[in-house]
Amino acid sequence: MKRPAHIARRMADIEPFHVMDLLARARRLEAAGRSIVHLEIGEPDFATPEPIMEAGRRALADGHTHYTPAVGLPALREAIARFYQDRNGVEVSPERIIITPGASGALLLVMAVLLDPGDQVLMADPGYPCNRHFVRTFEGEPVSVPVGPETAYQLNAGHLEAHWGERTVAALVASPANPTGTLVPRAELERMADLVARRDGRLIVDEIYHGLVYGEPAATALSISDDVFVINSFSKYFGMTGWRLGWIVAPEDYVRPIDKLAQNLFLAAPTPAQHAALAAFRPETLEILEARREAFRERRDFLLPALRALGFGIPLTPEGAFYIYADSSAFDTDSQRLAERLLDQAGVAITPGLDFGHHRPEAHVRFAYTREVAVLEEAVARLRRALG
Amino acid sequence: MKRPAHIARRMADIEPFHVMDLLARARRLEAAGRSIVHLEIGEPDFATPEPIMEAGRRALADGHTHYTPAVGLPALREAIARFYQDRNGVEVSPERIIITPGASGALLLVMAVLLDPGDQVLMADPGYPCNRHFVRTFEGEPVSVPVGPETAYQLNAGHLEAHWGERTVAALVASPANPTGTLVPRAELERMADLVARRDGRLIVDEIYHGLVYGEPAATALSISDDVFVINSFSKYFGMTGWRLGWIVAPEDYVRPIDKLAQNLFLAAPTPAQHAALAAFRPETLEILEARREAFRERRDFLLPALRALGFGIPLTPEGAFYIYADSSAFDTDSQRLAERLLDQAGVAITPGLDFGHHRPEAHVRFAYTREVAVLEEAVARLRRALG
Ligand SMILES: Cc1ncc(COP(=O)(O)O)c(C=O)c1O
Ligand SMILES: Cc1ncc(COP(=O)(O)O)c(C=O)c1O
Repeated sequence: MKRPAHIARRMADIEPFHVMDLLARARRLEAAGRSIVHLEIGEPDFATPEPIMEAGRRALADGHTHYTPAVGLPALREAIARFYQDRNGVEVSPERIIITPGASGALLLVMAVLLDPGDQVLMADPGYPCNRHFVRTFEGEPVSVPVGPETAYQLNAGHLEAHWGERTVAALVASPANPTGTLVPRAELERMADLVARRDGRLIVDEIYHGLVYGEPAATALSISDDVFVINSFSKYFGMTGWRLGWIVAPEDYVRPIDKLAQNLFLAAPTPAQHAALAAFRPETLEILEARREAFRERRDFLLPALRALGFGIPLTPEGAFYIYADSSAFDTDSQRLAERLLDQAGVAITPGLDFGHHRPEAHVRFAYTREVAVLEEAVARLRRALG
Repeated sequence: MKRPAHIARRMADIEPFHVMDLLARARRLEAAGRSIVHLEIGEPDFATPEPIMEAGRRALADGHTHYTPAVGLPALREAIARFYQDRNGVEVSPERIIITPGASGALLLVMAVLLDPGDQVLMADPGYPCNRHFVRTFEGEPVSVPVGPETAYQLNAGHLEAHWGERTVAALVASPANPTGTLVPRAELERMADLVARRDGRLIVDEIYHGLVYGEPAATALSISDDVFVINSFSKYFGMTGWRLGWIVAPEDYVRPIDKLAQNLFLAAPTPAQHAALAAFRPETLEILEARREAFRERRDFLLPALRALGFGIPLTPEGAFYIYADSSAFDTDSQRLAERLLDQAGVAITPGLDFGHHRPEAHVRFAYTREVAVLEEAVARLRRALG
């Protein structure tokens, strides 16, 4: 296929999700009758909880299909503010909460409002692949800092100190993180917020996996400072991936600029989703979500020792999200080749490290424990046969 | 409020929807018991057609709440392709159709894939306000070409010839247009496509109001060339504003780049909306939509002569969309002041020209005939009293 006549230079730096090729290969195998266990997708297998579905159906019955304000339904912004109060004991003004089309829309708006061409954003490698692409899309420069088990695969204040430069304007952390499931400890987050403030920069904290933590509850960055950007979403903990709904909590003086950007770029987030999400914080919904969290914990507690027993290197216990990031170099020096072999021979689909950055991707794979324990058992049995 | 420490320079060029202030003022008056006729909003008053609602409810009942592929459900891409065949007799491969979060998401992706910093895009002024902001957001330079009734408020090949420069990479037209409701004739579209191709540029045609045309059906730019970007949406003709769903038909060699951008920036368009939209092209839905088109025509046919009789200058009959763009300088040299006066004195909300660009905005207002004829009659009676 010929290269288009006009294509922005940024496109050369934007990578597709490499796992999509693996997924396509998996689908072909399935079409040919093979059974495939999918552990490659960052999406819970759970359906949206019934009270949210019911609110969605009622929203349609009530004809809620017109545009909302660009920053979202006032009632939803208030419900989120109350949730911060109830769950985290943190006071957040609803005025600072901006409803977005997923955490994706949130990341897009925050980068667009912050970055001039050439401005740098520090982030961990491995990390969520889209992060560097959001920065590049707005002509910023993502600075990927290699991280390993020594820092729980997370940035810390030392990294920020070491890598903060003339053009650095922000640092982005995700806690718990994708692909590693690890947290930034509260004290470290404080040090980072402090350091970033002293550098007159901005700290962006992606808390999309915040509800999915299996030990001590994670502290929201909002309990540390009002001057951080917090990003969150209804996708993961609330089981609403396809609805496309998330939010930003912005420092007060960014609310107006983000509002005008949201007006122009999105008009608004989906209306039925916003009405449905009003039911996300109800006690009966939270009960379902907490039971699911328990199920995720059981999955992790099964899969983690099983993978270690197979010979995968997993130096830390992932404390949140639904991912295990494993050193696979005992089996193959090329994790992409390994993932293809495991798909073809064992019928188990996992994500090679390549999607998460450039720091030793060839030595790592990610397992998403988005399937129930019985399925994970089958996957482990298959892996044992293929690797044994 | 203090200016944030870091804010992208682009933000200085991005304007909010000025009409929002007027809308807020209208809401305050309503809260104080005043009756306000809303003719300022670019959103039909019709509910989403029942067959689409029914498909949406079924999608929820069937648990369609997970992510779809970034480019959208294959069945929806095929349904849109069939619609081009049935309605326009144009063959479009479903592979070239990319489902987006509204025409907004479509404009965002097209600008992101095309524009390097400093690249220019030609567009009409007056025009849809977000257009220049999409260009600016990706560090491009919007070149607004003043247009008037001589060219039906549209760009023509002569404009492109005159304004095409070293850094111009694309021209953007909307037909029918917002705020003027006017069309680009097919022959002119051909000349423009030709000229742009000779300049090795790209033509982007926003056909969001395409179904809403009251004379001869409008020709899609796809019937002229496979090498244009066509943007469309389920928002207006299909009555699905709040669902946030649109599409791009891209030249073949842009599909892969747009796909990888959509993966990273959006993940996907809303899933319930995509399933609901599968019902948008069914005969029973199209029957409803055609009846609504008839209703819009009746509204226009009432409002147009009534506004002319009041003294508004409307040199052309708007052939599509649901807007009348009127010269208001007979009443006030400042259309913003006029709009405020009409809101306060007559309880009629309209949009001052300011939102649509910099070419004589002070002399123009936009009426959106999104209310039924009885309401329009009331609005005209009130305007007559206030202006008479
Ligand atoms: C760390 C992280 N941030 C953001 C997102 C975006 O999710 P969404 O746009 O569905 O909220 C994801 C999705 O996988 C993620 O893993
Ligand atoms: C000309 C034009 N293009 C695009 C849009 C965006 O609409 P949506 O994102 O709802 O499809 C609008 C909305 O008013 C419009 O008038």
